[in-house]
Amino acid sequence: MKVYLAGPEVFFADGEALIQRKRALTIEYGFQPNIWMGDAEIPNEKFGSGLYISAANEVVMRDSDFVIANITPFRGFAADVGTAFELGFMCALDRPAFAYSNDPRHYEERITGYFDGALAIRDDGVFRADDGQMVEYHDMADNLMLDGGIAARGGIVARPKSGPVLPQDDLSMFEECLAAARRFFDGRSA
Amino acid sequence: MKVYLAGPEVFFADGEALIQRKRALTIEYGFQPNIWMGDAEIPNEKFGSGLYISAANEVVMRDSDFVIANITPFRGFAADVGTAFELGFMCALDRPAFAYSNDPRHYEERITGYFDGALAIRDDGVFRADDGQMVEYHDMADNLMLDGGIAARGGIVARPKSGPVLPQDDLSMFEECLAAARRFFDGRSA
Repeated sequence: MKVYLAGPEVFFADGEALIQRKRALTIEYGFQPNIWMGDAEIPNEKFGSGLYISAANEVVMRDSDFVIANITPFRGFAADVGTAFELGFMCALDRPAFAYSNDPRHYEERITGYFDGALAIRDDGVFRADDGQMVEYHDMADNLMLDGGIAARGGIVARPKSGPVLPQDDLSMFEECLAAARRFFDGRSA
Repeated sequence: MKVYLAGPEVFFADGEALIQRKRALTIEYGFQPNIWMGDAEIPNEKFGSGLYISAANEVVMRDSDFVIANITPFRGFAADVGTAFELGFMCALDRPAFAYSNDPRHYEERITGYFDGALAIRDDGVFRADDGQMVEYHDMADNLMLDGGIAARGGIVARPKSGPVLPQDDLSMFEECLAAARRFFDGRSA
């Protein structure tokens, strides 16, 4: 079983070491971390290199049996948008999807600092900021398309039960996904 | 031809009016804005209602011929993650994809304010922040999976050529997508 490991680790200052640890853990759980094995001739051009990496990632996704996505908030209040794209891509292919966040909070708890004033259920029954913006209020880790797409395919969104945000090199929530995927596939073949 | 209109407008304080304007423009260009026509029995429960809306949106996406996504930065420096998920979903189904941003800047120009210090190409040849984080540097509107997925399917990412960020109720970039989609499908049937 090949797994696509989606997440923003490639952007971290210490990303390569973390990616290698994730791949090693994946193998411990009996899965193969799927990676691009094509030639390494990435065009030496800003736009073209982006297209090349995008196409390569799409090939690897189509060749993967499932996805584990790191949706820990990235440079703001929400998941990395590249990771969100990939999660949607795999859901459309109906591949089982798992995700984790090192932040224990629901989206509606995490986003409060973004707005002036309090978030509350208003007279129209909708959860809104003072400026009228609607805020998702579903006890989910992030936008309902992410959590919903994962749940619809039998996956889980692993988060700490409480406490502070875990450091970005803490892989305990990633391991919860690996264990859940192990149970998912073992149950299917039993 | 049915189009899935992806974007964070539902969260805007004045979102409903803007959504109606987008639907009217879509019809002017000869397309049908695709919307959920199922029953309106959304569960009166936080988590369950999220699952319901997610499943409904997936049904509408599978029933749509193409997508136009509003990837204007939302509550931060990047596109709405629900919109990114939906763009990935439609790309996996190999439906033509178009997107627009009311912000003229590349991601690498827009994100600078997030970091302490300057972004620059470092000794290892990689565009990084002072803290070592890698920053995408592809002259793209957002993460390469979004721009790349759109380009691979013949779509465009419409942005203002220069100047300030357009107001969120400015639909000129949305109209550029409609015009490009019109050309795309007229060319295919010619």
